[in-house]
Amino acid sequence: MTVALVGAGPGDIGLVTIRALELVEDCDVLVYDRLAAPALVARARHAMKIARDPLTQQEVNDVLVEHGRRGSRVVRLKGGDPFLFGRGGEEAEALADAGVPYEIVPGVSALSAAPGLAGIPLTHRGVSRQITVVTGSSGEGADLDYDQLAATPGTLVIFMGLRRLAHIADHLILAGRPADEPVAVVSRASMPDQAVVVAPLCGIAAAAVHLPSPSLVVVGAVVDLVREPDLRGHLDEAPAVD
Amino acid sequence: MTVALVGAGPGDIGLVTIRALELVEDCDVLVYDRLAAPALVARARHAMKIARDPLTQQEVNDVLVEHGRRGSRVVRLKGGDPFLFGRGGEEAEALADAGVPYEIVPGVSALSAAPGLAGIPLTHRGVSRQITVVTGSSGEGADLDYDQLAATPGTLVIFMGLRRLAHIADHLILAGRPADEPVAVVSRASMPDQAVVVAPLCGIAAAAVHLPSPSLVVVGAVVDLVREPDLRGHLDEAPAVD
Repeated sequence: MTVALVGAGPGDIGLVTIRALELVEDCDVLVYDRLAAPALVARARHAMKIARDPLTQQEVNDVLVEHGRRGSRVVRLKGGDPFLFGRGGEEAEALADAGVPYEIVPGVSALSAAPGLAGIPLTHRGVSRQITVVTGSSGEGADLDYDQLAATPGTLVIFMGLRRLAHIADHLILAGRPADEPVAVVSRASMPDQAVVVAPLCGIAAAAVHLPSPSLVVVGAVVDLVREPDLRGHLDEAPAVD
Repeated sequence: MTVALVGAGPGDIGLVTIRALELVEDCDVLVYDRLAAPALVARARHAMKIARDPLTQQEVNDVLVEHGRRGSRVVRLKGGDPFLFGRGGEEAEALADAGVPYEIVPGVSALSAAPGLAGIPLTHRGVSRQITVVTGSSGEGADLDYDQLAATPGTLVIFMGLRRLAHIADHLILAGRPADEPVAVVSRASMPDQAVVVAPLCGIAAAAVHLPSPSLVVVGAVVDLVREPDLRGHLDEAPAVD
């Protein structure tokens, strides 16, 4: 393999996989997201380090193909998991089209980490047996299909939903989801400043407005299973609906 | 913390997190699933090791509470991620009810690992922007809501669906999902005998009948993005529909 598309997990270096750490320590070129743990990036002692954020997706693809073609050991470090809303598919496609060998190294997705670290199981016997996962900011223009999401049973999880949370919550309620359905926003899961806010759907946008990204939004009855007592207060002091 | 509910990842020790490895190496009591990597279980050099499989869920809960109350460092090692179809919520509930401190250590779920290692992105620009995740064997009696699943856009992922795949595929088609929709079954992801079979929905049960557990079933257009050429053949030689 010359290029590895590697999941860096949610941010805490303890949630990095053994394989990811080995690849980072041995690589020649490291292309990393702003969401990758700085402590992990620092482990690439001998690598040329390229920050992903100033680059377009096309430029990232080109960097991976160019260094991969030279036979360098390239690690593309992505926050969370590369293939679960990580857009790893686009980079894999570019590498495959260019004939550059690559491998995928799965990581701990925010989908596991954020609810887990907040004490919220996404499924639970007798409460929820289905998870629906969408992104609040697809970059593809079209809005979410709120009628369909309102009719879907089980737990709804929204990646990158924080910035548009008022819009999303309003439209879910208009489409028929209960205004008092419990919602948790988990901000910066696993990082020292991790924060969790729990509120009803009608009040979550106001309650979570101060939280920094990245975040994961969890909608559904499983949120009532949250165990940290200090998170529970919000449910009883929800802001009024606009 | 006295009890840690720890995700062991899909099986390959390279996909275990640094934190999980540290906890296993230092624990006094290890309760482990049959799906946990044997190489990882072996790292618990000084621990009392308790296999989970002969025990009922109630007995597992009792073991965790009992050893946790004594202040032992207990690791409950679960395949994949504890909270993503790992039933970690039930064990967390038992510990919380008993007043035993615990922590959750998220792991690499099969939901990331199986599609990733098979080269299938669960979402992809212009192809799928939503993932629906269910279990084919909930242990709760009720069957899946096929009408609802047939009407859901995007990628459908089924945990533990292999044994009932003929039933599930038939009912999805009856409810309106296209008989020629591509499906991948990823068996024993990340393990030396990992296998992937790709076939249309109408033929997947016959094509995958020989695969061993655990498995993950992926239904949807993203399966057409699979990059391993040797997996593609099945799509053109699908068995006839009954």
